[in-house]
Amino acid sequence: MFISDNSSTVHKKVLKKITEVNQGVAFPYGNDPYTKHATEMMQSLFNKDTDVYFTINGTSANVIGLSALMQSYESVICAESTHINTDECGALEKYIGAKISSVEHNHGKINVQSIEKFLLDKGNEHHNQPKIISISQCTEFGSVYTPEEIKEIADFTHRHDMYLHMDGARIANAAVSLGISFNEMIADTGVDLLSFGGTKNGMMMGEAIISFRPEVTSNPKFIRKQGMQLVSKMRYISAQFIAYLEDDLWRDNATQANSTAQYLAKRLTEIPEIEIKNAVNANMIFARFPQEIIDKTINKEYYYLMYPLENVVRMVTSYNSTKEDVDQFIDELQK
Amino acid sequence: MFISDNSSTVHKKVLKKITEVNQGVAFPYGNDPYTKHATEMMQSLFNKDTDVYFTINGTSANVIGLSALMQSYESVICAESTHINTDECGALEKYIGAKISSVEHNHGKINVQSIEKFLLDKGNEHHNQPKIISISQCTEFGSVYTPEEIKEIADFTHRHDMYLHMDGARIANAAVSLGISFNEMIADTGVDLLSFGGTKNGMMMGEAIISFRPEVTSNPKFIRKQGMQLVSKMRYISAQFIAYLEDDLWRDNATQANSTAQYLAKRLTEIPEIEIKNAVNANMIFARFPQEIIDKTINKEYYYLMYPLENVVRMVTSYNSTKEDVDQFIDELQK
Amino acid sequence: MFISDNSSTVHKKVLKKITEVNQGVAFPYGNDPYTKHATEMMQSLFNKDTDVYFTINGTSANVIGLSALMQSYESVICAESTHINTDECGALEKYIGAKISSVEHNHGKINVQSIEKFLLDKGNEHHNQPKIISISQCTEFGSVYTPEEIKEIADFTHRHDMYLHMDGARIANAAVSLGISFNEMIADTGVDLLSFGGTKNGMMMGEAIISFRPEVTSNPKFIRKQGMQLVSKMRYISAQFIAYLEDDLWRDNATQANSTAQYLAKRLTEIPEIEIKNAVNANMIFARFPQEIIDKTINKEYYYLMYPLENVVRMVTSYNSTKEDVDQFIDELQK
Amino acid sequence: MFISDNSSTVHKKVLKKITEVNQGVAFPYGNDPYTKHATEMMQSLFNKDTDVYFTINGTSANVIGLSALMQSYESVICAESTHINTDECGALEKYIGAKISSVEHNHGKINVQSIEKFLLDKGNEHHNQPKIISISQCTEFGSVYTPEEIKEIADFTHRHDMYLHMDGARIANAAVSLGISFNEMIADTGVDLLSFGGTKNGMMMGEAIISFRPEVTSNPKFIRKQGMQLVSKMRYISAQFIAYLEDDLWRDNATQANSTAQYLAKRLTEIPEIEIKNAVNANMIFARFPQEIIDKTINKEYYYLMYPLENVVRMVTSYNSTKEDVDQFIDELQK
Repeated sequence: MFISDNSSTVHKKVLKKITEVNQGVAFPYGNDPYTKHATEMMQSLFNKDTDVYFTINGTSANVIGLSALMQSYESVICAESTHINTDECGALEKYIGAKISSVEHNHGKINVQSIEKFLLDKGNEHHNQPKIISISQCTEFGSVYTPEEIKEIADFTHRHDMYLHMDGARIANAAVSLGISFNEMIADTGVDLLSFGGTKNGMMMGEAIISFRPEVTSNPKFIRKQGMQLVSKMRYISAQFIAYLEDDLWRDNATQANSTAQYLAKRLTEIPEIEIKNAVNANMIFARFPQEIIDKTINKEYYYLMYPLENVVRMVTSYNSTKEDVDQFIDELQK
Repeated sequence: MFISDNSSTVHKKVLKKITEVNQGVAFPYGNDPYTKHATEMMQSLFNKDTDVYFTINGTSANVIGLSALMQSYESVICAESTHINTDECGALEKYIGAKISSVEHNHGKINVQSIEKFLLDKGNEHHNQPKIISISQCTEFGSVYTPEEIKEIADFTHRHDMYLHMDGARIANAAVSLGISFNEMIADTGVDLLSFGGTKNGMMMGEAIISFRPEVTSNPKFIRKQGMQLVSKMRYISAQFIAYLEDDLWRDNATQANSTAQYLAKRLTEIPEIEIKNAVNANMIFARFPQEIIDKTINKEYYYLMYPLENVVRMVTSYNSTKEDVDQFIDELQK
Repeated sequence: MFISDNSSTVHKKVLKKITEVNQGVAFPYGNDPYTKHATEMMQSLFNKDTDVYFTINGTSANVIGLSALMQSYESVICAESTHINTDECGALEKYIGAKISSVEHNHGKINVQSIEKFLLDKGNEHHNQPKIISISQCTEFGSVYTPEEIKEIADFTHRHDMYLHMDGARIANAAVSLGISFNEMIADTGVDLLSFGGTKNGMMMGEAIISFRPEVTSNPKFIRKQGMQLVSKMRYISAQFIAYLEDDLWRDNATQANSTAQYLAKRLTEIPEIEIKNAVNANMIFARFPQEIIDKTINKEYYYLMYPLENVVRMVTSYNSTKEDVDQFIDELQK
Repeated sequence: MFISDNSSTVHKKVLKKITEVNQGVAFPYGNDPYTKHATEMMQSLFNKDTDVYFTINGTSANVIGLSALMQSYESVICAESTHINTDECGALEKYIGAKISSVEHNHGKINVQSIEKFLLDKGNEHHNQPKIISISQCTEFGSVYTPEEIKEIADFTHRHDMYLHMDGARIANAAVSLGISFNEMIADTGVDLLSFGGTKNGMMMGEAIISFRPEVTSNPKFIRKQGMQLVSKMRYISAQFIAYLEDDLWRDNATQANSTAQYLAKRLTEIPEIEIKNAVNANMIFARFPQEIIDKTINKEYYYLMYPLENVVRMVTSYNSTKEDVDQFIDELQK
């Protein structure tokens, strides 16, 4: 139920749009009017020139996008807990050939002090050259960077001839959590490259690579194709984005997920043996469960036992999570 | 209209199945019952042990699959015209790091005589070691290998410690053209690895990597993930395959495409200035058009001007092409 | 003077052997009698079947060797301080495409407890699969693993279907420090793959990849060639190894370096403001120097200022370092 | 004897210089005065700004150099017979990830007409983008491009936003054959990147990457290090180049090789059953030998049986080949 937002269905408006575009001939590989429209909708979210490329999943959005901004002898600096570092089976190392240098973090968030040591490597051919700082928004621990925090990292990044990448697999949940627009959170703070996620928030499959530095990104369209990520019947990806951006469906979905997470957090506090480990900013809750509860509920698909040695479980709410789901879950736990 | 089978819509049965699975929680990344069912349906097509992995597009099916069967210092031998050689922006060279050695072909088909010269490289560290022979069925020129031809290549391949890969982007059209089962065409002839295509024949997006040598393929699941090809909400791919294989929808679709191509070929012969360049075995027609006709119709999305210098156009029929489409096209040409 | 053992000359016996082989025609690319002889000399160091491949530098010995033992979706686990992790500009990530997972260490040495957490990743396609444990002998901090420590790591490695790699850039200094044979230190303890270094101990350029698992290493000769590491006039590498192994020149050289390091350590203790940071097991000393001394001597090429923020310098003695060199250096420091 | 110029010894002046630099401490990795001097000597050969990087062998000079000028989604166009295409075990495909597109040739030489077809791929993401034209001087068939021919290719290359690479493994033999300077042959004609070979003409091991476009080459020093090609005791490579360029040793050596080839060609014509297949421009001769002669001499290391099916052998003269060697060989053949 709260295993992952990946376990959810597709929002009915998204599926409806897919059905609507299912007529007539459309040029393949993105040369169709739906893709043009979805691209323009995406661009209109930001007051900046952007290049937008659709892809299928978060791993490819991260890797294909970064491939356009860096060389193999450079490095990506990120929190040890970042998805590109721990959950993509080394896709970045394989495809780009670069090193990921991880730093300590606070519930998934990093700061520029922890990065300064890498500046000593600049110009020294024995070390990968620091080029990208990558942050996740929301982080993998459910925390959310404030615009000020992002701007501080972006300024540091640019001061040292580097670029800032944001892995936005749950970008809508972050925007809703902060109560600000995508533009304020991303373009205004100085993010150079964004992986804009849709799949986890009610789409079927679809992420967007958005470059805020079209003048320096090196030909993402060739990289996407060579990277095996170009979809032929692209209209079915673009249709999802149209539905997702129309009438701010993304906001409604993320609001539902976030507020259900708040409700879930509140109700979990009713069980004294359970300790919530994070500030619940968005749609993820990490909590320490007693062994007895885990033994009885581990096979019921309610949550993911993330750190078995420490009895810490992860719960993720989704666009279609409801208070009733929470109540049912809490009832089960209280048994 | 006949630009490509990629320009077509999704068959309504496929879309219906997607809608049907859109309920409830499903474990992500293929750990759901729909994927299990689709995998078993695929396996039951063949009287052999197989490993089946779903992916998004033909390029990734080819590259991820081959990555499990070869090393970077080995080579793939194929027709100069093969999709992996000419139309995937070098995805194989990038991802596997191996060389593609192309040989001459006859309307897309190769024979073992043209390959023998590469055997001289065996054991010599200065040359990539020949390991894979890759054929397309149908070929990129619309021709179809007979089972006897496939078996001859497979036997040669195995005699020399190599593997046979088949790019089956239009595998259904080939099976219908030959009037035989997938099993007779593929497993019985000795194919080691198949890229089983669905997208061009009425699916939305979905291809399958099928290994007939599960004992030698090296962990495709890790390669697929590291290769950025693992979809989180996999049920929406698997559902398509279920619909595609149920009641032999693949056969109905390919039959419609192939028979419409026959009708189109027949009607094209009514225009004496047009010369058909290939035997129309499946759903592709190559023809030489007079310059005057090209000038008047090039912008009407009827066909793809493949070889501009020679006035040769490609027409591809699809699962939903009709005699009426053909008649309208011929009328237009005759004007 | 003590900047690095890389700064030293070539031992005169090595140069003499190069001169001796400089006559007549020799088949290129290692197909010459000198290479055959050097290979057999190397093999006779161990009571085990081995495959031996010469290469030019330590980075390539590490990367080409490991490339024969692992897949890109697997990982190398090593100390954070390991050369392959920090000083090879990401060569392993680029060439193999795999991830390096670093662990905490004690003066460069790791233990199996720190590795156990990676075993949880086994079988999970989202994470690189742990396959190699790599240790440096001597470590980059000048410490030396005992045979018992190596055996414990090797046993752990094999128990979990992994391989143990040893980066032996200073392998002779380690053997002399322990007072045991290469065989006892390496083959008997269970090392699977060794980068055997010669350059830092009096050779001009030359390292050897030694596989103790010839039955599983995947064709290093092709990997070496494709990896741009095959030298055409190989006899000039092989001659160096012949001189290096004849009459145990390697032992004499390492003994001189190690004993000079002991003398240097002893004399450094005469300067109370200087604090030696490591147990001096082999030919490397790390020490904290007062800022005043650093200011006056930093440009005299005596040492390498390794951690500027902490005033820690590294001194490395070489095969031709003498007590007189030490005395001169200490005099300078005492001024 | 004429198997390859790789089979020869090292010229005594080169060895003498190696011995001369074998004293004192020298900063490693090329930060030594010998490397500075050798680099300046190399640069003074050309009236242009150049970046110079030493490496060990021809394969790495080609691949590391090209890696600084192209992206993986681009392609190298060259003669089918080019070394990078046929004799480097796919090093370029592996390291750069790019495609090599080969064209027909005339005794190893290509012309721009054969390349024009690739221009149609420009901008189309389904095809590797043509970026590099690579020619070998001398070619692998012993022919030599005239400066006019090089200039024509260079002009074509630049007109279409591409770069011209020259594989100069036997560049000295070409310069001597044409009777012109390196500058006239390379810088003046518009070559962008040169692999300057020394090993085949009397050096021990050493090639130079020379970029004539330092403003566009992307950080070769990092690529060389990450590409496992940075030698620690660099002075021993640089010393070779100093000796090689001092007093034009390169010219003396190549003159001896070329003139001996002329003499060999002349004497071969005395044997009527032998047919010389190429114009002998430099130091390589290809000839058809009768089966009877091959049977009797194949094991005597005189030549390399290049095309066994056609009885064509390759003979390569070297810096130390003499008329006496030729006479002895011809005597043997005449027996």
